[in-house]
Amino acid sequence: MVQFRNLDESPAFRALLGQGPSDLRAALTAEAFETRRADAGGGLTFSWAASDAGDETVSLLGALAAEQELVEKYRLLASGHRMNTGEDRMVLHHLTRGEPAGKVVRDGRDFRAFYEGERLRAADFARRIHSGSLTGSTGKRFRTAVQIGIGGSDLGPRALFLALETWARAKGRTRMAARFLSNVDPDDANGVFFDLDPETTLFILVSKSGTTQETLANETLARDFLRRRGPAGLDPSRHIVAVTSETSPLARNPGYLESFYIDDFIGGRYSSTSAVGGVVLSLAFGPETFEELLRGAREADERALTPDLLRNPALLDALLGIFERNVLGRPCVAVLPYSQALSRFPAHLQQLDMESNGKQVNRDGHPVVYSTGPVVFGEPGTNGQHSFYQLLHQGTDIVPLEFIGFAENQGDGDLEVEGSTSRAKLNANLAAQVVAFAKGQDSGNPNKRFPGGRPSTLLYGRTLDPRALGALLAHFENKVMFQGFAWNLNSFDQEGVQLGKVLTKQVLAGGPLDGALEALSRALGVR
Amino acid sequence: MVQFRNLDESPAFRALLGQGPSDLRAALTAEAFETRRADAGGGLTFSWAASDAGDETVSLLGALAAEQELVEKYRLLASGHRMNTGEDRMVLHHLTRGEPAGKVVRDGRDFRAFYEGERLRAADFARRIHSGSLTGSTGKRFRTAVQIGIGGSDLGPRALFLALETWARAKGRTRMAARFLSNVDPDDANGVFFDLDPETTLFILVSKSGTTQETLANETLARDFLRRRGPAGLDPSRHIVAVTSETSPLARNPGYLESFYIDDFIGGRYSSTSAVGGVVLSLAFGPETFEELLRGAREADERALTPDLLRNPALLDALLGIFERNVLGRPCVAVLPYSQALSRFPAHLQQLDMESNGKQVNRDGHPVVYSTGPVVFGEPGTNGQHSFYQLLHQGTDIVPLEFIGFAENQGDGDLEVEGSTSRAKLNANLAAQVVAFAKGQDSGNPNKRFPGGRPSTLLYGRTLDPRALGALLAHFENKVMFQGFAWNLNSFDQEGVQLGKVLTKQVLAGGPLDGALEALSRALGVR
Repeated sequence: MVQFRNLDESPAFRALLGQGPSDLRAALTAEAFETRRADAGGGLTFSWAASDAGDETVSLLGALAAEQELVEKYRLLASGHRMNTGEDRMVLHHLTRGEPAGKVVRDGRDFRAFYEGERLRAADFARRIHSGSLTGSTGKRFRTAVQIGIGGSDLGPRALFLALETWARAKGRTRMAARFLSNVDPDDANGVFFDLDPETTLFILVSKSGTTQETLANETLARDFLRRRGPAGLDPSRHIVAVTSETSPLARNPGYLESFYIDDFIGGRYSSTSAVGGVVLSLAFGPETFEELLRGAREADERALTPDLLRNPALLDALLGIFERNVLGRPCVAVLPYSQALSRFPAHLQQLDMESNGKQVNRDGHPVVYSTGPVVFGEPGTNGQHSFYQLLHQGTDIVPLEFIGFAENQGDGDLEVEGSTSRAKLNANLAAQVVAFAKGQDSGNPNKRFPGGRPSTLLYGRTLDPRALGALLAHFENKVMFQGFAWNLNSFDQEGVQLGKVLTKQVLAGGPLDGALEALSRALGVR
Repeated sequence: MVQFRNLDESPAFRALLGQGPSDLRAALTAEAFETRRADAGGGLTFSWAASDAGDETVSLLGALAAEQELVEKYRLLASGHRMNTGEDRMVLHHLTRGEPAGKVVRDGRDFRAFYEGERLRAADFARRIHSGSLTGSTGKRFRTAVQIGIGGSDLGPRALFLALETWARAKGRTRMAARFLSNVDPDDANGVFFDLDPETTLFILVSKSGTTQETLANETLARDFLRRRGPAGLDPSRHIVAVTSETSPLARNPGYLESFYIDDFIGGRYSSTSAVGGVVLSLAFGPETFEELLRGAREADERALTPDLLRNPALLDALLGIFERNVLGRPCVAVLPYSQALSRFPAHLQQLDMESNGKQVNRDGHPVVYSTGPVVFGEPGTNGQHSFYQLLHQGTDIVPLEFIGFAENQGDGDLEVEGSTSRAKLNANLAAQVVAFAKGQDSGNPNKRFPGGRPSTLLYGRTLDPRALGALLAHFENKVMFQGFAWNLNSFDQEGVQLGKVLTKQVLAGGPLDGALEALSRALGVR
C-alpha cells in the first residue's frame, strides 16, 4: 500500500539537509561525463556530470525516491488511480502513447483504446485533407491549419510544431502550414489572419470544456473572418474542427466539420500527445510524424518505471531539482536548448512545471512548510548567452541549468566559416558553457572572476527528430510528476487560476465592484 | 561632487531593512489608485497602487534616492561622465533621442549630432528604398529587410518591430516586411531564408565590433543564399548593409551597400534607439514612425531627471524593485504585458536587466554583500494566466509583477461575444489580476485559498503606438540604470560573457582541452 506523506516527513530528506554542493571544479571530469549519464529514450542521453549533487547526495536522493515511493506512485497514476485528488480524477496522459502500467478500463471504457481511436480518426482526417478528398466548402484544398486554443491547448502544440518545422521541410514531411492563435487580445487575431486565404484555411478549435473565454472569442473572430473575407459560397462550419470533450457544447455539433475527443483525465498542460497536439501535428507533418513522436514519448515513459535511480533520468532529474530547491535553496531553473527549433519549448516547460507544482497545499489540502515548484524560464542558446547569461555566470544567486543539445542539424545549408561550421560553433559554445558554469575562472581583476560552482544537467542526442522530441517532452512531464510526488502535491489541478476568472466576470457583468477594481477597470477603458 | 557608495552604506537602506510589506488587502483602494500614480511620458501612466511598499517605505526610498544621488548620477552619465568604469567608456544611449543633460562634446565630436546624423542618413536611405530609387542589384524593389544580429542587436529591435507590426498595418505605415536572424544554429537561417526572394531581400548586418561569431557565420550563410538562390546577375554586396562602429572591419567596406554607425558609448542592450534599431524600423515602418518612438523615449528620459520620487516613475519603479529584492528578499520579477504585440518585450527586458545588473562586484571591482539583479521573465496576458500564474497566485514564493496595459486596440476587427469585446475581456482580466494578486481570497477549502499580498505595478496608456512604445522602452532602461546606481554597480559592461567565448575558441581551435570539455565536445560531435 503506497503511503502519501510530505517531503519533510522523509528521513532521507532530513539527512539530505546536511549535504552541501560538491566542488564542481574538481567533480566535473571526463570520467564523470562517462559514468554519470543514462539513456533517456528517443535516442537521448541524460548527463548529470555537471550537477553539484555528489555521490553521497545522489545516494540519499535514491533513498528519498524509495521512501516517497515515487516510481510506485507513477505506476499507480498510470494504472488509473485518482491522483488528481482535488478534482477526484484519473491522470491518463501516458495512455495517449502507451500503457506503462497496463490496461485502464473503467465503466466499460478502455482508455488506451479510446485515445488511440481518436489518434487514428485524426490520422484518417489528415490523410483525407492531404489527398484533397476533403476540401474547403468552396472546393479548394486546405493549405493552412490555424489552432485556436490557450495555455495547454497552445503552448505544447506550438512548441512541438516549431520544433519540427525545419526538420519536416528538410525531410519532405511538410503537408500544410500551421499557425497558432491564443490571446484574447484581438490584435493577436489581427496578426494571424491578415494574409490568410479563407478558402484554404482550416481552424482547429481546442477547448476541453468548450467554454474557454479566450478561445470562444477567437472563434467568433475566425467565423467573422471566414464570412467577411471569403467568397459568398463559403460555409464557415466546413472550415472549423473542434478538439474537445464528449460532453462539451462543441461535441457532435453541426457547426463544425468534425470533432475529436479528449476527456477530463488529460490535463491541458499534459495534452500535447492527445488530439490537442495530434490533430494539428498530423495535419502539418503527416500522421506518421506524430506516431514517431509518440514512440519517443513512450520510450521515455518506459524508462520512468525503472526503480534504479541511475537508470531513470526523469526521476533523477526530478530529485536533483529537489536538492537544488529544498536543500540548497535555489528558487529558479533555466532551460537552455542549443537549438533554435526549441525556441518555444521553455515556454511550454514554464507552464508544465509552474502550473503543476506552484502550490502551497499538499494533495490533501494541508499547507506545506517547504518550497515547491521553482520559477522556470529560458531561451535557446547561443541567443541566451548574449542576453541573460551574464547574471547566470556572475550574479549573486545561483540558477541551476538544464541544457539540451544535438550533434546534427535538422536541415541543410551549413557552411564553414574560419574553419568550423555553424553547427560546430553552436555545440562548442554549449560544451564551453557547461564547463564555464561549473569550473569558473580566477582572475586578479574581480570583475573578470567567474566563481563557478553553477550546476547543470544536459540532455543530448544525435538530432532533433520527432522521436527525440517526444522523449524530450515526456522526460519533462515525468520529471514534473515525480517532483509533485516528492512534494506530496496534486500536480494535476490549477485552482490558482480561478479567482482571476471570477473577478473578470464581475467586471464584464457591469454590476457593483470592489472600489479598486472599479478604478482600474475605468482606467483601462472597460467600464 | 557625487559620491559612489555601496547600498548597505546608506543609512536610509539600513532603515528600510526594518520595513515589512504593507497589507495589500487594505492598501489597494480606489483612492490609492487615484493618488499613487504618475505620468511616465509617451501618454503612459505608472501606478504603484498595488505595490506593497507603504507610505513610510516610499518615503525611505526617497531618502535612499537622495543619499545614493541617483538622479545626479543619471545627469552625470548623460553629460558624458565615464560611467562604464570597467571599460572606461561613456554611456550615451540617451543621446540617440535627446540631450537630457545638455551637449556632450569630446575631441571635437558632438555626440548628439553624430547619432542624429546617422538617424537622418538611415531615414534618407529608407526613403530611397521605399520610393524605388534604390533597388536590389537586379533592379527589383526591396520588399523584405532581414536583420542579422544577436543579443542587443536582436532582442530590442525585434521586440519593437513586433510591437508595431499590427499597428503599422492598421495605420497604413507598413513599408517593408522584416525578419530577424540571430542564432548560430544553422537551422535558424534555414527557417528564415526558406521562402525569401533573394532579389527583393536586403540584409542588415549588425555588429558593433564587426567580429561577432554568430553574426559573421550568418552573414556567410546569407551571402551563400543570395548567390545560390538568386539569378546570375545578383551582386550580394548590393543586398547587405552594415550597422557597426567606424573602426570595425564592416565600416566603409565595398562589400556592403551602405554602412551606418554607432560607437563604443552605446551598449548593445541600450542600442534600440540608435542605428541598431533605427535602420530596420525605418525600413519597416518609415522614418517618421521611428521618430515618434524616439520622441516617446525622450519624454521618459526627461521625467527621469525629476528629483521628486513621486513624479519620476523610472526612479520609483527602480526603488520599489530594491525594496522587493533587498528588503523583502524576492529573487524574481515577472513582466506581464496585456498586449500580444509585446510578446517579445519581456525577452528584451530580460537581457536589459539581467545583463546590466547580474553582477557581484561593484563599479570599483569590489564584491558586494547584497543581492543584485533579479531573474526577469514574462509572457503576454492573458496567455500567461493559462500558463504560470498558478505559481504566482498560490506558489510558495512571492514574485513581484510588472503589468502593462492599453485601453484601445492597435488594429480593427474586434467583436462582441456575450456582451463584451475581446479588448474589454483582455482589460477586465488585467484589472482582475491586479486585484486578485493583491487581495487574494479566503476559502474553507485551503486548495481554493488565495493568500494575496502579491505586489504589482502597472504601466498603462491609451494605445500602444510608437510614442508609447518609446516611453515604455526608456522607462525600463532608466529603471535598470537607477537600480545599478543604487547597487553601486557598473551596469554597462558584461564581463560574464567572456569565459564561454574563450573556451569555445579552445574547442574550435582543435588543441588540447580540459578533459571534461573534450568529453562534452566529443559527445556533441564537435571534436
